Amino acid sequence: MTEALPVTDSPDLETTHTSDDTFQLREIQLAFRNRGIPAEGLRLPITPTGMHYLLNHFDIPYVDAAAWKLTIGGRVGTPLSLDLDDLRRRPAVTFPVTFECAGNGRVFAKPRPVNQPWLHGAVSTAEWTGTPLGPILEEAGLADSAREVLFTGLDRGIQFDVDQYYQRSLTVAEAMRDEVILAYEMNGAPLEPQHGFPLRLVVPGWYGMTNVKWLDRIEVIDEAFDGVQMQFYRETSGPEDVGAPVETMKVRALMAPPGIVDFPSLQRRVEAGSVTLVGRAWAGRSQVARVEVSTDDGASWHDAVLDDPIGPYAWRGWRYEWHATQGEHMLCTRATDSEGNVQPPEPVWSYYGVGNNGMARQPVIVV
Amino acid sequence: MTEALPVTDSPDLETTHTSDDTFQLREIQLAFRNRGIPAEGLRLPITPTGMHYLLNHFDIPYVDAAAWKLTIGGRVGTPLSLDLDDLRRRPAVTFPVTFECAGNGRVFAKPRPVNQPWLHGAVSTAEWTGTPLGPILEEAGLADSAREVLFTGLDRGIQFDVDQYYQRSLTVAEAMRDEVILAYEMNGAPLEPQHGFPLRLVVPGWYGMTNVKWLDRIEVIDEAFDGVQMQFYRETSGPEDVGAPVETMKVRALMAPPGIVDFPSLQRRVEAGSVTLVGRAWAGRSQVARVEVSTDDGASWHDAVLDDPIGPYAWRGWRYEWHATQGEHMLCTRATDSEGNVQPPEPVWSYYGVGNNGMARQPVIVV
Repeated sequence: MTEALPVTDSPDLETTHTSDDTFQLREIQLAFRNRGIPAEGLRLPITPTGMHYLLNHFDIPYVDAAAWKLTIGGRVGTPLSLDLDDLRRRPAVTFPVTFECAGNGRVFAKPRPVNQPWLHGAVSTAEWTGTPLGPILEEAGLADSAREVLFTGLDRGIQFDVDQYYQRSLTVAEAMRDEVILAYEMNGAPLEPQHGFPLRLVVPGWYGMTNVKWLDRIEVIDEAFDGVQMQFYRETSGPEDVGAPVETMKVRALMAPPGIVDFPSLQRRVEAGSVTLVGRAWAGRSQVARVEVSTDDGASWHDAVLDDPIGPYAWRGWRYEWHATQGEHMLCTRATDSEGNVQPPEPVWSYYGVGNNGMARQPVIVV
Repeated sequence: MTEALPVTDSPDLETTHTSDDTFQLREIQLAFRNRGIPAEGLRLPITPTGMHYLLNHFDIPYVDAAAWKLTIGGRVGTPLSLDLDDLRRRPAVTFPVTFECAGNGRVFAKPRPVNQPWLHGAVSTAEWTGTPLGPILEEAGLADSAREVLFTGLDRGIQFDVDQYYQRSLTVAEAMRDEVILAYEMNGAPLEPQHGFPLRLVVPGWYGMTNVKWLDRIEVIDEAFDGVQMQFYRETSGPEDVGAPVETMKVRALMAPPGIVDFPSLQRRVEAGSVTLVGRAWAGRSQVARVEVSTDDGASWHDAVLDDPIGPYAWRGWRYEWHATQGEHMLCTRATDSEGNVQPPEPVWSYYGVGNNGMARQPVIVV
């Protein structure tokens, strides 16, 4: 059982943060409950479904699609109830969307929150197919008092001591954007259970927690929703600090590491000579304007060449020709977005470990 | 980058074992490089592709199927070269096969090898489609000197300081068994890259390392192959001890934990009353004869009811009706195979942390 605790283990569940370089069993359990993309997966523009990162707060619910219905209610003129066939009969769109967990990079800023111990693998890009949400809300008819749209999944669990179904909200303006869809296919196939079967919200540009899985109901509300999942996904200095919500993804670049790996040390060995370094970069709703590469731990930087975009909501490939000389090298990448935002060289700390787009480093040994 | 090391990290790569209850960053990196099945995935008889556990020693190679060919050579009368169409034109079989990593449960026996830190999630069952290997070997014509069949993948890396392509062998007798297939489909679709696209060996009943991915060549040899992957997958007392190879899967039962989970503590809360405990059990090439459940940490045991088998090479479902009373309970399961082998109550230690089928425990709080 992935969550099974050995009898010898008695984790201090009161510990919320640690400066230790070592990890608790709990963090290993969380790492296995969820999944990162293997770094070499960054070589592919579209992530295969089984390679896509995964972050579920609660257990995966198993949904009987035949009995399932999505309800749209609250501050609307005409409440709706739609089954999967109703949704499939509506206009469909397909496009690649990059998802990144807001906690990506969590372990690198100290003190480290004892939570899903993401390194840099909480990002992937899949082709999503669904029907736009806006026209459905227009059919239901938004009341004048409509302020936000609340999305509730069928995944139930406990967080902040609250027994809850996973819930997130969007402002009406965000929910009505053209690219916001209710998705029933991922990479050309029905959603797998762990990715939200039968239906999930997809909000391109936002961090992953926005894309509510296993959708059960959509409610138009006349106030700002302040549930647990709105409180957790904020950059704060502590539990008493309101801070600011994490919303659209910050600019970031990652590299598919060159050479071959040593198992289990994970040291990487690269043959001297010409090496093509490749990776992906993304910037939420902005564009990736520039990707730079350093092979000397940031002492000097060189522009990478950007691949053609694969879509307005997907990461962008990049490449850089490196003449690798023998010895140890620390490879780094940093991206700049179309607003002029540059990745910071060091990790960005926040109490819950969200919104850290600090630069990644990859040591290699050139032989 | 999944393998990226923070600058502050300097893992002691000489450390092969530890008795610490805490984990190194390296182990977190390994956990994310690979993947366990989420415990609730044990509710499903067939594991969705994206939920299937994954253990790759080296980087995932990306294979151009159009240029790919499988060669069959060595001690044969007629060397063969087959492309994917050749293989698809041959007789096809499909059946569910349970795979388990030989390292499943590695972290529970102390001192713990510093390696892929499996809890109990390194097991899954998929529907595999392929063509039997035996008739292909017969076509090639085994020489009288033929002793073993060596399988080489396209995944290259370093282990035991050896730069290698992943290689495992089987005796001729094992390789010729009817159920041994060359698989090109998993769950009705072409293999995803991380599962061995375009072709992998499937040897039902054996631990996962046997099912060589990204098959490049098959060579009939006249001696016993003793490569790195034959040395690593052995139950030994140390590097100097030859020990015994791990081959077919030992009997084991696991539970899909009841109730709901607290995030991120992973404590589980169950409502008092009637609770149906469910899970899966498997026994390599033997049959599952019995599954027992304890709700008091092994003080008393009760027989579970076995579901109908879904196939000769797949795990078997089980269920037990528990009347849950308020308080903390330690749930355990143990299985017995048709040879009379029973799971041991405590973890089984070996130097490389393989072959441990010790009983799993799941604490729950009943409210």
